[in-house]
Amino acid sequence: MRIARFSIDGNVAFGAVEGDPAQPDTLAIDIIKGIPFAEFELSGTKVPLNKVRLLSPVLPSKVVAIGRNYAAHAAELGHQVPDAPFAFFKPSTAVIGHGDPVPYPPFSSELHHEAELAVVIGRMCREVPRERAHEVVLGYTCANDLTARDVQRTEKQWARAKGFDASCPLGPWVETGLDMAAASDLAITCTVNGELRQAGRTSQMVHPIADLIVNITEAMTLLPGDVILTGTPAGVGPLNVGDEVAVSIEGIGTLANKVIKRD
Amino acid sequence: MRIARFSIDGNVAFGAVEGDPAQPDTLAIDIIKGIPFAEFELSGTKVPLNKVRLLSPVLPSKVVAIGRNYAAHAAELGHQVPDAPFAFFKPSTAVIGHGDPVPYPPFSSELHHEAELAVVIGRMCREVPRERAHEVVLGYTCANDLTARDVQRTEKQWARAKGFDASCPLGPWVETGLDMAAASDLAITCTVNGELRQAGRTSQMVHPIADLIVNITEAMTLLPGDVILTGTPAGVGPLNVGDEVAVSIEGIGTLANKVIKRD
Repeated sequence: MRIARFSIDGNVAFGAVEGDPAQPDTLAIDIIKGIPFAEFELSGTKVPLNKVRLLSPVLPSKVVAIGRNYAAHAAELGHQVPDAPFAFFKPSTAVIGHGDPVPYPPFSSELHHEAELAVVIGRMCREVPRERAHEVVLGYTCANDLTARDVQRTEKQWARAKGFDASCPLGPWVETGLDMAAASDLAITCTVNGELRQAGRTSQMVHPIADLIVNITEAMTLLPGDVILTGTPAGVGPLNVGDEVAVSIEGIGTLANKVIKRD
Repeated sequence: MRIARFSIDGNVAFGAVEGDPAQPDTLAIDIIKGIPFAEFELSGTKVPLNKVRLLSPVLPSKVVAIGRNYAAHAAELGHQVPDAPFAFFKPSTAVIGHGDPVPYPPFSSELHHEAELAVVIGRMCREVPRERAHEVVLGYTCANDLTARDVQRTEKQWARAKGFDASCPLGPWVETGLDMAAASDLAITCTVNGELRQAGRTSQMVHPIADLIVNITEAMTLLPGDVILTGTPAGVGPLNVGDEVAVSIEGIGTLANKVIKRD
């Protein structure tokens, strides 16, 4: 099931997206009664997808992102792959949805895209054993770990370089029909104005999804709707005002955002 | 005014703490009608402080902490003072209140205390000019930026080392009666089992409070209740199970927490 969060006429709801993404006009949202983190029912009330505004499919209390989890990306920035995962946070104020604009951060002149598979947590958890990691996952979505690369080089910790407003597009929806094995071998791409910039497979992750969940929850509690970003494949590069950046993941969908001038 | 958040008989409320902290039995909480981030009234209903459980005085969506903002502390860890502030996040799941236990993090064997002045944000803001920085502050409280020092040394980003559960005690209340000039010259201490470990003054900050607000909000929106940790003076050191650690700041109060064995 594809679970979206959307607004229509000022109301916000979750819904299940039905139809063929290859034919956007066929897509409709069946409104969910309740929230997707517990048992829920579909209302049967359907709204055409092109009549709603998609929002970030979840409202994470925190986004935990993993650095250098694809060897070819670590190499392109001149870094070694770390022996163990290392994590950083993106705050809730960084999260936007599919179609939302990305204001170019005023304190940077080197905004970069980083296409990533995002793991959406479905239940409160801590100290999750590896063999039970799949149980805490609601589903998967696309993410763009937008980065002020110049600031990242000069500031030892990345709160500003990777935590600025709109630096975490998520969407278009959460795909709950992929199990962890399937999610661990998907094609992932990033295009800018239709031109291919990043292309990889989630099977290239140095530390696989289950290990990331173990590593993070060894230290901290994850809440329903929290998100893990699993790292980016090679090919990161600059974005300019006016660019349309799109992250596509096989079996999930496409997350597209336009870079605009900040007011 | 000292604004506390507390629970009594399963209910949670904000209140104004009255009385003399030097005589704890005289302290009472006048319950606030509404929330302290807008115009509010005192209800006149008073509860003895020793009958309530103090909670973290605010529920931050994010805690933005500043590294190496006291020269003597940077030196004790063998680091230089950075030219510009650098920031990292502690997540909402790290926040606890005065009197709450700190479970020793199971993935570390070197838990350290770091006493810090915490700035509590009172209104949503971004790109705050330096001369208006004081307008976005609700008040000040004590913080302990608990750190898994061994993990901090091995992991390039500090999400686990400084973001683990219970790693951000805040409290005991928010003092709203200090202006920014007063908050910028207060004695700050940390004791462990009554023994002095850290002693400094907030005037020793390399980057003063207003500059931190400018630096952070240049990149990201702060929300009411968000918290800025302003760095720690020299004297950081280890905590063991059973230790009682107390952060005291002149004109604010004392934040005390006991380290316990994690279940």
